[in-house]
Amino acid sequence: MQGNKDGVSMPVIRRMARYYRYLCELEKGGAQRISSGAFANKLGLTASQVRQDFGCFGGFGHKGYGYVVDELKKELQGILGIKAPKSCILVGAGNLGKAILSMNYEGVGFKLSAVFDSNPKLENTIIKGYTLRPYSSIGDFCQKHRPDMAIICIPSASVEKVATELFQLGIKSFWNFSHYDISVLLPQAIVENVHLNDSMMTLRYRLG
Amino acid sequence: MQGNKDGVSMPVIRRMARYYRYLCELEKGGAQRISSGAFANKLGLTASQVRQDFGCFGGFGHKGYGYVVDELKKELQGILGIKAPKSCILVGAGNLGKAILSMNYEGVGFKLSAVFDSNPKLENTIIKGYTLRPYSSIGDFCQKHRPDMAIICIPSASVEKVATELFQLGIKSFWNFSHYDISVLLPQAIVENVHLNDSMMTLRYRLG
Repeated sequence: MQGNKDGVSMPVIRRMARYYRYLCELEKGGAQRISSGAFANKLGLTASQVRQDFGCFGGFGHKGYGYVVDELKKELQGILGIKAPKSCILVGAGNLGKAILSMNYEGVGFKLSAVFDSNPKLENTIIKGYTLRPYSSIGDFCQKHRPDMAIICIPSASVEKVATELFQLGIKSFWNFSHYDISVLLPQAIVENVHLNDSMMTLRYRLG
Repeated sequence: MQGNKDGVSMPVIRRMARYYRYLCELEKGGAQRISSGAFANKLGLTASQVRQDFGCFGGFGHKGYGYVVDELKKELQGILGIKAPKSCILVGAGNLGKAILSMNYEGVGFKLSAVFDSNPKLENTIIKGYTLRPYSSIGDFCQKHRPDMAIICIPSASVEKVATELFQLGIKSFWNFSHYDISVLLPQAIVENVHLNDSMMTLRYRLG
């Protein structure tokens, strides 16, 4: 349903992100190499799946040696685009928006440029170094700074209007925390959803 | 990799949660019935996938009529366990924990019983009606109230210790916001992960 570059499937890409995260931890711990077997064990996968995943990008292991942590980390940084940050804006500074503000954007390939909220009472409030801007100024901001992505932390009822406006302003991708299905409204947009309610319902189901 | 009841695959379960969410919206809007085609369109799926998904649970449609919104909603409530809430606790009342506090737990089949934090300065603070409890009291609480699930909003470095303790205290399922892979540490546990960094890295990759 949703497109991706290079013909690599989304589950493989999601595992690349996990691999990268784990490599960062390994590096912090001082490890210099890791076998595909140890890698797989740590992440609940099989060694052949790990090798196959890296194979989608040409494969990075050394036969009988495994992977050099530092090398593989750099390869994944390149694949994921982590050292070439895209700019993003955050729309909606409620509880969730505020929590999201404290993420390490640089570590995941983004730079948070500005934060918007429609509540006039919050205007010019400073949260974690970001001055909250009125939503009414978002058009000017986008025309001037051309952000690549918008983080949507507003109530579902407002998303149709806001996503349509942002798309017309040139923002073609969304990190969507609302329950509104942006990718149905805007099939050309690149949308990554975090549906917390769906996640909890899935967990509830699994509890029996 | 991860178990589920009834032999139904996890993607189907995740779609059940989406269907349910959408049915709630339909009901609010006053709709009384919906065809599998309209359902599918709204969610970016095909009609046959929708029918096949419901088929996993016996199928609920009426040939040539579609689905009765109210009936289907009740069926999905039953499947997902939404009207039989399980009790949960939240561990870690930082920004993310606070944001998670304001979720509508009842609407997704849970009841939030207590909130814990290890910061002594926060002890007895009241946030959205919940009195923060010291982490040191979690053993007594679990023995007395037997919560079913723990929401993990603490730094990754503390998760191994905390998850192990909670598992020994009888909590067998986790909604995990940390980057620590609890399901590798505790293969018997039921774990639903929300990995925000992985989600952002996936989005970054797709931006090219």
